[in-house]
Amino acid sequence: MTRTKQKAAVIGAGSWGTALAMVLADNGHEVRLWGHKEAQIEEINTHRTNHKYLPDIKLPQGITGYSSLDSALRDLDIIILAVPTKAIRDVLKDIEQVSQQPLTVVHVSKGIEPDSLMRISEMIEADMSSSMLKDLVVLSGPSHAEEVSLRHPTTVAVSSKNMIAAERIQDLFINQYFRVYTNPDIVGVEIGGALKNIIALASGITDGLGYGDNAKAALITRGLAEITRLGSAMGANPLTFSGLTGIGDLIVTCTSVHSRNWRAGNLLGKGQKLDEVLTNMGMVVEGVRTTKAAYQLAQKYEVDMPITNALYGVLFAGKDVKDSVDLLMNRDKRSEMEDLFNIMEERESE
Amino acid sequence: MTRTKQKAAVIGAGSWGTALAMVLADNGHEVRLWGHKEAQIEEINTHRTNHKYLPDIKLPQGITGYSSLDSALRDLDIIILAVPTKAIRDVLKDIEQVSQQPLTVVHVSKGIEPDSLMRISEMIEADMSSSMLKDLVVLSGPSHAEEVSLRHPTTVAVSSKNMIAAERIQDLFINQYFRVYTNPDIVGVEIGGALKNIIALASGITDGLGYGDNAKAALITRGLAEITRLGSAMGANPLTFSGLTGIGDLIVTCTSVHSRNWRAGNLLGKGQKLDEVLTNMGMVVEGVRTTKAAYQLAQKYEVDMPITNALYGVLFAGKDVKDSVDLLMNRDKRSEMEDLFNIMEERESE
Repeated sequence: MTRTKQKAAVIGAGSWGTALAMVLADNGHEVRLWGHKEAQIEEINTHRTNHKYLPDIKLPQGITGYSSLDSALRDLDIIILAVPTKAIRDVLKDIEQVSQQPLTVVHVSKGIEPDSLMRISEMIEADMSSSMLKDLVVLSGPSHAEEVSLRHPTTVAVSSKNMIAAERIQDLFINQYFRVYTNPDIVGVEIGGALKNIIALASGITDGLGYGDNAKAALITRGLAEITRLGSAMGANPLTFSGLTGIGDLIVTCTSVHSRNWRAGNLLGKGQKLDEVLTNMGMVVEGVRTTKAAYQLAQKYEVDMPITNALYGVLFAGKDVKDSVDLLMNRDKRSEMEDLFNIMEERESE
Repeated sequence: MTRTKQKAAVIGAGSWGTALAMVLADNGHEVRLWGHKEAQIEEINTHRTNHKYLPDIKLPQGITGYSSLDSALRDLDIIILAVPTKAIRDVLKDIEQVSQQPLTVVHVSKGIEPDSLMRISEMIEADMSSSMLKDLVVLSGPSHAEEVSLRHPTTVAVSSKNMIAAERIQDLFINQYFRVYTNPDIVGVEIGGALKNIIALASGITDGLGYGDNAKAALITRGLAEITRLGSAMGANPLTFSGLTGIGDLIVTCTSVHSRNWRAGNLLGKGQKLDEVLTNMGMVVEGVRTTKAAYQLAQKYEVDMPITNALYGVLFAGKDVKDSVDLLMNRDKRSEMEDLFNIMEERESE
């Protein structure tokens, strides 16, 4: 496959932003990796490492670090937005100020904003002027940054309201080890990516309590059912939750020690309090904010979300961890179709 | 909950039969655990252990080991059939000869018979006279025997053509740590349980090749899609595959070192040949037989099953393991809905 060399800026030099910059550099593109910490950018340009986020990984030559957003965005029209959801609005403001041409924005964050209850693409549409936002694409899927940086085989999906733009981004990223599929259901892709972090936190908790793989499989199964119920109510295609950005991402996040949401849950299950956990992690744990947002969404859309509700109680209402999990495991329901038929009803009433 | 004490015979003293016998004994029932090895039965009755299958576990007093099938079945009408699929037909012949009353048969095996392409319940119906088979119930779900024997929280589903019988078995088994749900879709419950072993073998292979969690999540996601396609074509409810006996069992089998199918695949991925692997395991690896059966079913029902086909090539046609996996990862499809929409079409044409 011959490929046209393109320029792209990756905004955010955490582990995922850096791994995606490596994929683009491997594909022969000119990649500018922007971060706000001068020392980190200097490390990237001088030592070709980003030690805090991807230890032991050598960055390819095609990546150049930038601490000036202005310089990073000059003469290009594709940006990959890889910052925590909490920082997105601030970063967008800065981008809007310095960018000199309409941008195709690829966002790779996973979350929902509490209170506004906006998905990431909705936040971007609200915060960027329409003249500056040429296209908006989401890239999501089961993809630990650490493994992508080792060129291990990985699959992701891209979605957009404009599928031509999604296909352009597919062509930009796809290679032998990084397989990119399109999916037209942007609501489903974003909801699946965001809500899996809740189930990952809960999985960490059951593992921290020592409950084992049988319990975790039950939790993930029911977690998928409640994510699908909410997503369908919000207009997603229920089938998306059976795909890479649904069950795929859920599995990788819930069963891997790489996942920081799982790790945070694991500490909670072992008896630490939320404040301690967040201090000890020293990284953003998206699932905590997302739990609050999903709790609010469940109320808004009147959807039954027992795992989300139980986790909300633990995180924000001082409920006991073990009691909450045991209650969840011993629910009175006797037929598993009670969980699953709800989805079918959503589907049939469309 | 007050419970009537009942008598039940568990046929097969491997790890799963023994763990289920423990659940029944914990519930206060009289449990007869039958096995054909005298020494093992003596160990069970004398030392209250079954060391080869559940090391370090003390069996409760309510379990008595039997090596005589005749004695084990005397004066009872519930049997739990926990033998490998390969042995089922022989055991059924023996049961038919010695049983003196119609039986409720609960089968807990996971597999499909190659060539006849029968599910386990179809084999049982074919081999037992209808006057001797009162009811037939399948019990399946994400449940490592080792964890059940440690009383870790576990969920399973029971299904039957006669849901009154399924509920009777639900009542027999359910307790605080062993949660039993009913599901009326016996075809889906049996297909999900059987076919997950194929994906577990394949997951073991990608892990053995060192491909990581991202690749495994992609494999499990696509595995679920192809199981759902085949199951739907065979008359199952596609929703069952989103439940405990579908994605739940798939997750636990593919991500846990307890799984012997995963372990067998892992050795294949590391370069061992099938014969070596089976000799080294010393236990039945159901997924190998099931791959052959599923390969035949895919042809019969004209369903696209790329993972099953690739694994069939490795196991039975001398194909190279790494080449087969790499081909699978680099399929030409560009939209993930190509995989998923097939299911929707099945669903809509019903």
